[in-house]
Amino acid sequence: MILALAGGVGGAKLAAGLARLLGADLTVVVNTGDDFEHLGLRISPDLDTVMYTLAGLNNTQTGWGLAGETWSFMDMMERLGGETWFRLGDHDLAIHVERTRRLANGEALSSVTAALCERLGVKARVVPMSDDPVRTIVHTDEGELAFQHYFVRRHCEPILKSLRFEGAEHASLSAWFSAALDDPSLQGIVICPSNPYLSIGPILALKDAERRLRKRRAPAVAVSPIIAGSALKGPAAKIMQELGKTPGAAEVARGYRGLIDGFVLDEQDAGLARELSAEGLRTLVTETIMRDTASAAVLAERVLALLSDLGH
Amino acid sequence: MILALAGGVGGAKLAAGLARLLGADLTVVVNTGDDFEHLGLRISPDLDTVMYTLAGLNNTQTGWGLAGETWSFMDMMERLGGETWFRLGDHDLAIHVERTRRLANGEALSSVTAALCERLGVKARVVPMSDDPVRTIVHTDEGELAFQHYFVRRHCEPILKSLRFEGAEHASLSAWFSAALDDPSLQGIVICPSNPYLSIGPILALKDAERRLRKRRAPAVAVSPIIAGSALKGPAAKIMQELGKTPGAAEVARGYRGLIDGFVLDEQDAGLARELSAEGLRTLVTETIMRDTASAAVLAERVLALLSDLGH
Repeated sequence: MILALAGGVGGAKLAAGLARLLGADLTVVVNTGDDFEHLGLRISPDLDTVMYTLAGLNNTQTGWGLAGETWSFMDMMERLGGETWFRLGDHDLAIHVERTRRLANGEALSSVTAALCERLGVKARVVPMSDDPVRTIVHTDEGELAFQHYFVRRHCEPILKSLRFEGAEHASLSAWFSAALDDPSLQGIVICPSNPYLSIGPILALKDAERRLRKRRAPAVAVSPIIAGSALKGPAAKIMQELGKTPGAAEVARGYRGLIDGFVLDEQDAGLARELSAEGLRTLVTETIMRDTASAAVLAERVLALLSDLGH
Repeated sequence: MILALAGGVGGAKLAAGLARLLGADLTVVVNTGDDFEHLGLRISPDLDTVMYTLAGLNNTQTGWGLAGETWSFMDMMERLGGETWFRLGDHDLAIHVERTRRLANGEALSSVTAALCERLGVKARVVPMSDDPVRTIVHTDEGELAFQHYFVRRHCEPILKSLRFEGAEHASLSAWFSAALDDPSLQGIVICPSNPYLSIGPILALKDAERRLRKRRAPAVAVSPIIAGSALKGPAAKIMQELGKTPGAAEVARGYRGLIDGFVLDEQDAGLARELSAEGLRTLVTETIMRDTASAAVLAERVLALLSDLGH
């Protein structure tokens, strides 16, 4: 059994590659710090991105949402003068309405997610990091912003000063996350190429998460979301700069110190392998850009081989 | 100022004809006994039918919902194994989401409806009969059914034994309904050709509604929803039979005894005019089938002329 930690698009791609090799022997723990209430609906953007990508339903053009989506709801919402800055597709909406209804009935997010995954034919176990509410708040030069207001509404333009994960210190790991960490058959942990601050940060901020990951019995590796100093997608490099760090894969690896045994670098960053090895990390230099599920599976295979090496 | 009482499709058509002639000088009071919570959303079928018809957005093919509707949400909901017996179109859904959100914020249904009408360009005042919850419950040979379960899910197939309007005895008239009844400029009341039991019945069951309509200072007329013993649409005639009444326009007119001064019959029922006149009702025999808004406006003009006659 392999445990992967993931956020949005990049993480979902590697998770899909892993899922192709592992099927039901994969548990993907997903960030829920981005979750919010919008138009009275409960939206879980990262869970949906992972779920859609693993189901093969993701929109590869936009990088978010569903392929073949239609926008009638949004058109009408615009006509009604409602909020339209967060785009909800017509198919996508069914997920939000169904999730909201089930949560309102007292079901846990883990259970709702499992049911949705089953209906969408996702074999891997996709689980929220916690069933307790955690909300990422971005402290910027314009004041505090709720995550989606920073990320979508303001396109990450405000300068980030710090982050906090409201509720994280009291939020328990979801039962399946916790069980995976204790599972005697756990063979490795993969930190997917997701934003270390916005996507992996909330997972690590959960009560006991970091302590338990440090005490892991199986090896752990991270795949760099930063290639040649910039992120393929999203604001990771911009945020590193705003936090006074040097944007780069080495900085990401150091941020995970104690949590990982190996680190996967893109070929463009081959030059960093030596210094990271010197700091005690097993490194793997390979092509990390995932153009499709097949190339994600190739990367996944190499990541699993690295974990296997580390386990011996 | 004219006050119209309406339910769904037939009532909405005449209301649209009246609106074409009267613009903002029309208040349409709409049945909310059909309202229900579905998929966590607050659905007001009759309010929407009236609103869409007055906005010229109604689907004339189906007789319900919006023209040019798309069904992506429903397709996905089906895939998720959610409830699909009540069809919610993608555009239509924006109305339900926006209404649900505003109601959850503490706004009254009257105010939400006014805001939606304004955005859709509806000039007439469309108001729910009450801002308090009233739910039509149908007692059938298969037991009690919530209205939409009887009407949509079971296609009105169970035999109706009786009806009750849960909450009606404690529900106040909405402020605009009440104000219209007291308005010194009120020149007439029109009971639209809606189902007398399912659509007009809940309005009359509201606390003080029937008493105040009996004490009216302006004349009132009803337009028969029954032509030659059958309803153009819906189960009115079937219900009359099940309640042991003779399906027909005369029976409808008698059911409104004391509430109306005039009654509009279709040409096919010309033979009933004499007996209804003998019972003290002013009758108008005319073409009552409304094929489009133009023919609805012709009927509306005749109805207004009858009210004007009765007022002198």
